[in-house]
Amino acid sequence: MADWIAVEWRGAHLRIWGMSRAGEVRSSREVGASGAEKPTDIVDALTAVLGETPSVPILASGLPALIEDPERGYVPVPCAPPGLANAVKCQGVGLDLWLLPGLRQAQPTDLTKGAETRIKGYLALNPKFDGVICLPEAQTVWAHISAGEIVSFRSFLTSTLRDCLAQSRLLGGAVSADAWDEAAFVEAVAGAMTRPAEMAARLSSLRAAHVLGSADSGQEAARLAGVLIGVELAAARPYWLGQQVALVGEDKLCRAYAAALGAQAVPVERTDADRMTLEGLKAAFAEA
Amino acid sequence: MADWIAVEWRGAHLRIWGMSRAGEVRSSREVGASGAEKPTDIVDALTAVLGETPSVPILASGLPALIEDPERGYVPVPCAPPGLANAVKCQGVGLDLWLLPGLRQAQPTDLTKGAETRIKGYLALNPKFDGVICLPEAQTVWAHISAGEIVSFRSFLTSTLRDCLAQSRLLGGAVSADAWDEAAFVEAVAGAMTRPAEMAARLSSLRAAHVLGSADSGQEAARLAGVLIGVELAAARPYWLGQQVALVGEDKLCRAYAAALGAQAVPVERTDADRMTLEGLKAAFAEA
Repeated sequence: MADWIAVEWRGAHLRIWGMSRAGEVRSSREVGASGAEKPTDIVDALTAVLGETPSVPILASGLPALIEDPERGYVPVPCAPPGLANAVKCQGVGLDLWLLPGLRQAQPTDLTKGAETRIKGYLALNPKFDGVICLPEAQTVWAHISAGEIVSFRSFLTSTLRDCLAQSRLLGGAVSADAWDEAAFVEAVAGAMTRPAEMAARLSSLRAAHVLGSADSGQEAARLAGVLIGVELAAARPYWLGQQVALVGEDKLCRAYAAALGAQAVPVERTDADRMTLEGLKAAFAEA
Repeated sequence: MADWIAVEWRGAHLRIWGMSRAGEVRSSREVGASGAEKPTDIVDALTAVLGETPSVPILASGLPALIEDPERGYVPVPCAPPGLANAVKCQGVGLDLWLLPGLRQAQPTDLTKGAETRIKGYLALNPKFDGVICLPEAQTVWAHISAGEIVSFRSFLTSTLRDCLAQSRLLGGAVSADAWDEAAFVEAVAGAMTRPAEMAARLSSLRAAHVLGSADSGQEAARLAGVLIGVELAAARPYWLGQQVALVGEDKLCRAYAAALGAQAVPVERTDADRMTLEGLKAAFAEA
């Protein structure tokens, strides 16, 4: 039996960990899930997965949009990663369900929803870390960390763009999910960083090369990602230039970012996203 | 009865004009159609729409990918817009079906599929035109025209990106099809032209403003388009700077490009895409 339940809702995935009070994982589940629009969606999903309505406390990350008051749903930076003191209890759902807020930045306007918990986990394991954490996912977040606080951050819809384009009528046929040509990727990153404005034209060239049969599928997939990540790196330069960067994310995407940053001579360290999420939820719950 | 049939297959639309030998339109139809993968798809679609298999010659634009030999499917620039001498007859389909090729450019690698016919139509009506034609659509084409030839061109998947993002999980909710705030659009264009690399971050800000409820739907739709068109204008500067630009495209999209170019003090003239397509097909057929 779990003493409490850690939950993360990210993209189309719901992760559930049954936890002991001491922070040991007693069980874990991962299921596909469409978006949660209201707190009862979480209750329904948990009950369906666990086979019963849980009676222990539940702490959830990645769902700040479900907190009714945006002032409480997003904590303004600079701040320490949100913890139990910032969590908002869901009313009238019949469960002891707490939602962790995201981060908010006024200028440039930006939000996070889940990255803040992974940052919390990373800092729990690396309390003296000062530098930059990059969290590549559908919405990639770059965060400046100093003295245990998130000083500023910027997020990019780079992978959202990639996934959209990979499913589009014009480019869809050109991108295989599996093939990958590392040299083509690094070259595309370099080209895009030099002339970022040409992004939509480079995508058009990619499509033309596909129609003419002048590129293989590994080159095509790598070039699509390379163009988009290169444009992101051009804009995120103030984050990585002269910095040590900790990459926290899914393995394949992090390897691409590591290759792109490595080509700019930026030293990187890679860490698993799910593990950091769990460490962040554990660190938050331990504040009880 | 038609003497010949003019056809355009663009995106998800099939346009069919029944023509007299003198170039008068006897009938016209527009139907929704998914992609044509092989010449018999055109035969099937025409037969379904017309209620019989046509016995008159058919000249089709927008389907260069169906021409088996890419060398004949795309004419290299510089060249005059492809005409009947470049058209390729489909074999073994039981119809007198001719496909017009697109344009091909070696460096930067690029192709057109349909824009070349609208350019032909525009030049048929404006034979002395020297300057730049911009054809905004799913794949926007910018073309330098001199002495009746397409000297060079560049295409951008800007509207493809917009449509992809408008349907995405992260941004989908933020974009209404109808609302439009012109001032927000022009401001977003200017911002994106200044720092084009920040595109994916600006999209993230757009999402954040939507979640926080700090923008109305007209501002959101206009900012999404403005960011993407602004990045395109930054890259297409060699095409429009100091030029007279003829815009050929669908009305709403052309009005957006006209506003963006107008803010850069570029004089523009707007012309309807369907009309230019028909004029281009007529000009090609008249070469018989």
